[in-house]
Amino acid sequence: AFTVGIDSGSTTTKGILLEGNTIVRRFLCPTSFRPAASIGEAWETLRAGLAEPPFLTLTGYGRQLVDFADKQVTEISCHGLGARLLLPEARTVIDIGGQDSKVIQLDEQGNLTDFLMNDKCAAGTGRFLDVISRTLGTQVEHLDDITEGVEPHPLTSMCTVFAESEVISLRSAGIAPEAILAGVINAMARRSAHFIARLSTQGPLLFTGGVSHCTTFRRMLAAHLNSEVFTHDDAQYAGAVGAALIGQRQRKRHG
Amino acid sequence: AFTVGIDSGSTTTKGILLEGNTIVRRFLCPTSFRPAASIGEAWETLRAGLAEPPFLTLTGYGRQLVDFADKQVTEISCHGLGARLLLPEARTVIDIGGQDSKVIQLDEQGNLTDFLMNDKCAAGTGRFLDVISRTLGTQVEHLDDITEGVEPHPLTSMCTVFAESEVISLRSAGIAPEAILAGVINAMARRSAHFIARLSTQGPLLFTGGVSHCTTFRRMLAAHLNSEVFTHDDAQYAGAVGAALIGQRQRKRHG
Ligand code: SF4
Repeated sequence: AFTVGIDSGSTTTKGILLEGNTIVRRFLCPTSFRPAASIGEAWETLRAGLAEPPFLTLTGYGRQLVDFADKQVTEISCHGLGARLLLPEARTVIDIGGQDSKVIQLDEQGNLTDFLMNDKCAAGTGRFLDVISRTLGTQVEHLDDITEGVEPHPLTSMCTVFAESEVISLRSAGIAPEAILAGVINAMARRSAHFIARLSTQGPLLFTGGVSHCTTFRRMLAAHLNSEVFTHDDAQYAGAVGAALIGQRQRKRHG
Repeated sequence: AFTVGIDSGSTTTKGILLEGNTIVRRFLCPTSFRPAASIGEAWETLRAGLAEPPFLTLTGYGRQLVDFADKQVTEISCHGLGARLLLPEARTVIDIGGQDSKVIQLDEQGNLTDFLMNDKCAAGTGRFLDVISRTLGTQVEHLDDITEGVEPHPLTSMCTVFAESEVISLRSAGIAPEAILAGVINAMARRSAHFIARLSTQGPLLFTGGVSHCTTFRRMLAAHLNSEVFTHDDAQYAGAVGAALIGQRQRKRHG
């Protein structure tokens, strides 16, 4: 049977339609300060044309804003479960989204054993890359093209606000924007490596969330951790996948 | 004899000409990414017309950028000494500048016994008020006029970056800008109270640095600490005063 999982993040809303272990449909849109409407769109898109409405599980910060879901679950449990489907042997999951980051530890059975969460400081989240990219007149989507093979220029400030000023003064000192951007990604990757190490660096390590699409970031994170960093084309949907899996279990139990 | 103390901060450059315990001249200008030139201007202004050049002591983050000073001293020792001249009975000093904040503990003789420093996170510094004021189309200088007698609207985010987004969404939800600004000041005052409490809340407490000029902030800080918060018209010059005092000692010892 079909189930739907929707992950209402503060930056993007992600949803999937799942059948067994197969993702049948994907939905992704910017949340843009209208989380409830974004969840509604995701739901209509994912259930469209199905004979009966699939079991709907919501997760993410906006999950309590609508009342038509069958179930609501916290992000951490969904992410652990979703990661397991994407990479069954994963033991550590680092998820870096637009406005938070988390690291999750899984045991050999894939059960969640511990986690760390940051949603207080923009510096460890996608927002950092966003702000700095905009300051340099580009977008996160172009970071890989711009920084490929570029030697990173060192960045001193870790605070997003102070880094923004530093980047402006590096630019006026004539440092090339691509070297600054590579330096910014490198500084954030180093910080993320420390964040992961606070919990666990046991491999295999799966990298999920929006920032996982940045190949330069992933390469630098692997260098700082001195270990392989796996990702998956559907890495941004890990939370939604986990939510849909929880729906499957629930259905089996009751149905 | 005259001595000069110059405090080269990352936001403003402050300088004074001292004779005995009397501040004879004051100099203040925005550092604006040209710390060396700002120190030069301060020096020329403060020594102008004096028969012989006064002993010059530099402090602050830019103190090593020029080579014409007689002495260079770290900010913490200067701030402690300067605070003592402004309020001899002070036992705790909280200094909130444009890009850092520090709390200093003094013993009964006014000697520095301990301190805490933050220059890593913009949220605890004047930069926070700056960013949010600009977001709401005003300037830090007008915060007192705007927020006088205004009930603060609660603010959830402590990170400067997340607070900026929160403020924008509060505005579009129709919350009055003055209530938002009062809420922003209140949130930062609460944070500063926690910062102070990590070291010492023994009174009398002297509040120095640029942010000390914000009366609303001082009132809210006093409320969170549940104790009186003193300031001084020359509170922004505490570091420079301390530097000039160190120059006096040096001269006495050697001359
Ligand atoms: S102001 Fe800077 S260091 Fe502080 S919480 Fe925000 S991003 Fe992090």
